Amino acid sequence: MPPKSPHKQRPSVGDVATLAGVSLGTVSNVLNHPDKVAASTRDRVERAMTMLGYVPNTVARSLQSGTTQSVGLIVSDLSNSLFVDIARGAESGVEQGGLTLMIANSDARVERESAYLRMFAQARVTGVLMTLNDAAHFAAVARAAPPGVPLVLLNFGAPVSQFCSVDVDNALGGYVATRHLIESGCRRLVFVGGPHELQPVVDRGKGFQRAIAEQPGVSGEVVTPDWINRADGWTTGVELATRVARGEIDGIFAASDLLAAGIVQALSAASIRIPDDVAIVGYDNNQAAWDSPVPITTVAQPGEEVGRLGAMLLQDEARGDGPEHTHSAILLPPQLVVRGTTRPTTAGR
Amino acid sequence: MPPKSPHKQRPSVGDVATLAGVSLGTVSNVLNHPDKVAASTRDRVERAMTMLGYVPNTVARSLQSGTTQSVGLIVSDLSNSLFVDIARGAESGVEQGGLTLMIANSDARVERESAYLRMFAQARVTGVLMTLNDAAHFAAVARAAPPGVPLVLLNFGAPVSQFCSVDVDNALGGYVATRHLIESGCRRLVFVGGPHELQPVVDRGKGFQRAIAEQPGVSGEVVTPDWINRADGWTTGVELATRVARGEIDGIFAASDLLAAGIVQALSAASIRIPDDVAIVGYDNNQAAWDSPVPITTVAQPGEEVGRLGAMLLQDEARGDGPEHTHSAILLPPQLVVRGTTRPTTAGR
Repeated sequence: MPPKSPHKQRPSVGDVATLAGVSLGTVSNVLNHPDKVAASTRDRVERAMTMLGYVPNTVARSLQSGTTQSVGLIVSDLSNSLFVDIARGAESGVEQGGLTLMIANSDARVERESAYLRMFAQARVTGVLMTLNDAAHFAAVARAAPPGVPLVLLNFGAPVSQFCSVDVDNALGGYVATRHLIESGCRRLVFVGGPHELQPVVDRGKGFQRAIAEQPGVSGEVVTPDWINRADGWTTGVELATRVARGEIDGIFAASDLLAAGIVQALSAASIRIPDDVAIVGYDNNQAAWDSPVPITTVAQPGEEVGRLGAMLLQDEARGDGPEHTHSAILLPPQLVVRGTTRPTTAGR
Repeated sequence: MPPKSPHKQRPSVGDVATLAGVSLGTVSNVLNHPDKVAASTRDRVERAMTMLGYVPNTVARSLQSGTTQSVGLIVSDLSNSLFVDIARGAESGVEQGGLTLMIANSDARVERESAYLRMFAQARVTGVLMTLNDAAHFAAVARAAPPGVPLVLLNFGAPVSQFCSVDVDNALGGYVATRHLIESGCRRLVFVGGPHELQPVVDRGKGFQRAIAEQPGVSGEVVTPDWINRADGWTTGVELATRVARGEIDGIFAASDLLAAGIVQALSAASIRIPDDVAIVGYDNNQAAWDSPVPITTVAQPGEEVGRLGAMLLQDEARGDGPEHTHSAILLPPQLVVRGTTRPTTAGR
C-alpha cells in the first residue's frame, strides 16, 4: 500500500518496497550493497525513495526523543557462528540509521531472555532484536516485552498480530541440498541428521524427504548421529565407508558442516574418492566448510541478512508509525554454495 | 595492605586477598568454584571475608546511584572463540554482583572502540570492560575513556598508573607447550607459527625459542604458514610429511588448534602415526582441538578467567574507592591440556 499520511509520518522502507514493487531485501541491498542489484531495479528503488522523500541516513534523527541512540540484540548462543553473523548484520543495519548496537547473550534460557529485555528497556534503547530458538519460550518473551519498546524476533517466525520477525526456511535448505545431489547424478542418498530435539535439523530432514519423494528411482535413508560435531561425522563416516565402497550409497547430505567435515575426513582416510565415489553436502557455510583440504559444498544460512532486515524492520517500527504499524514476518531462503565435494549438476531446476 | 578506612568504604576483593595472603584468582574461585579450592585455603579466605565484613552479593546495591545495573563489554572479534570465552567469564563475574552485561563488537577498529565507549557512557553503565589487541590503539582509547566511568582493559597489559587490566602470558604458553614436547622425548622440534603481524603468535614463538635454548641436544626450527587456519595446517603438514617419515622431525608445536588439526589431518593421510612418529601440540583449546578423531594436546587460554577477574576488578573500582583506588595489572598463565597427540611425559618440570 502507498503511505497513508505522508505529512504525518516519515516514509518507511516498506513504503519504498511497495511503491517500487520489490521486496524489503531488495531495498536493503540498494542501501547497502548496490552492486548486487541490477541497474534497472536500483533505478526503480531510488526513484521510489525520491518520490516518497525517504532519506535513510536521517532515520536516527527522526526517532522518538528520550532514548539512547542504540539498539539491543539478545542472542541465544554467541559460540554459534550463525548468531555472530546475525549480530554482524544487525550492526550494519543499525549503523545505516546512525545507531549503535549492544548485544546480550541469553544462552537460550527463558529467565535471561526476560531479564535482558528489562535491562535494555532500563538502558532506554530504541528497540530490541532477539533470536528465539525454542517456540516454548515465546509466550514468556511476549509477556516480558516492555511496553513502548519495539521488539523484533529473529530466527523465529512470530505471529504478525504481535511482532515483526525474520526467519530462515530450513526445510527449503534441506530440499535444495538434496535436489543438488540428485541433479548431479546421485541415486542412493543418506541424510545424516542429528538428534530430534534440534528443530532446524528436523526441518532440514523434512526437505530431504520431500525431494526424495518427488523423484522416482531415488532412494533416501536417514542415519542419526549422537550430535552434529566433527567427531560425530567421523564416527558416522567410518560406519558408512564399507557401504559407500560397495556402491550402496552415492550421495550424503549432512545436517551441519562439522558433520560433513568429519565424514569427508573418515571417507578420505578409507581411500574413498570425493565426489567421484560419493558426493557430500553440508549445511551452515561456516569455517568447517571452507577451511578444509577439500572445500565442502554447503547451504549458506543468510545470518547477516536476518540481522540486517531485522534492524531495518525495528527502525521502521521505532520511527513512530505507532498503532498504525503493520508487523511483517519475513522468511528468507538459504543459498546453495557449490564447492569440491559435489559434481556439477547435469540438469537445471 | 589492610583496608585503609573500614568505616568509610566497603572492603574490596583485593582487601580479602591481601588479608588472606592469596591471589585475586583464589578469592574469585572461593566465590564461584569453591570445589576447586583446598579446604584450608577456603577457610582462610572465608575468615578474611568475615573479619572484613565482605558481602559479595550486595556489591550491586553499594554501587554509585544514578547508573543502570549493567556493565558494558567491548570485544575485538566475536567470531574468535577466545572473545566469546571472555564474554562468558565477564557475564558470570557481573552476575555475581547482581549486574547484567551488554556487549559490543569493535572489529578492532579504533573509531568503533571510541564510539562504543561513548555509547556505554550514554547508557549510564556501571563501568566498561574492553579487549584491546593493538598496542597502537591504546592512546586513543585512553583519550576516549569517559571520565567517571571505570574502564578495565582485557587481553592487554595496561600501565597501572591509568587502568586495571587482565592479560594472558602467551610467551609462557609457548614455553609450556615446548617443554611438554621435550619432556615426552622429542628432540627435533618445529614451531609452525603464523604471520608476524599476530602479536600473540610472535609471543608463543618466543616461548618456543626459550625452551629450545635452555635444553642442550634439542633443535628447533620455525616454519611460517600463510595464516593460522586448518587449510594452512594441511598445506604445512603435506610439506613436512616426508621429513617426518625420515625421522628428521619428531615434535611439532602449532600456534593454533586449527593449524594443529590440519597438520594432524595431513600427516594421518600420509600414514604417519601420531604420537608414535611425531607428537603435536596446538594452542587455544577450542573446538578444533577436542572435536577431532585424535583429540589434540593443546594450551588452554584462560579466557573465562580473564573476563571474570576483569569484572571483579571493575566492580571493586566502581564501588567508589575513588582517588584512593589502586589499579592492578593481572597476568594469567595458560594451561597445558594433554590429549591424544602427545605421549605422557617422562620427566617432571
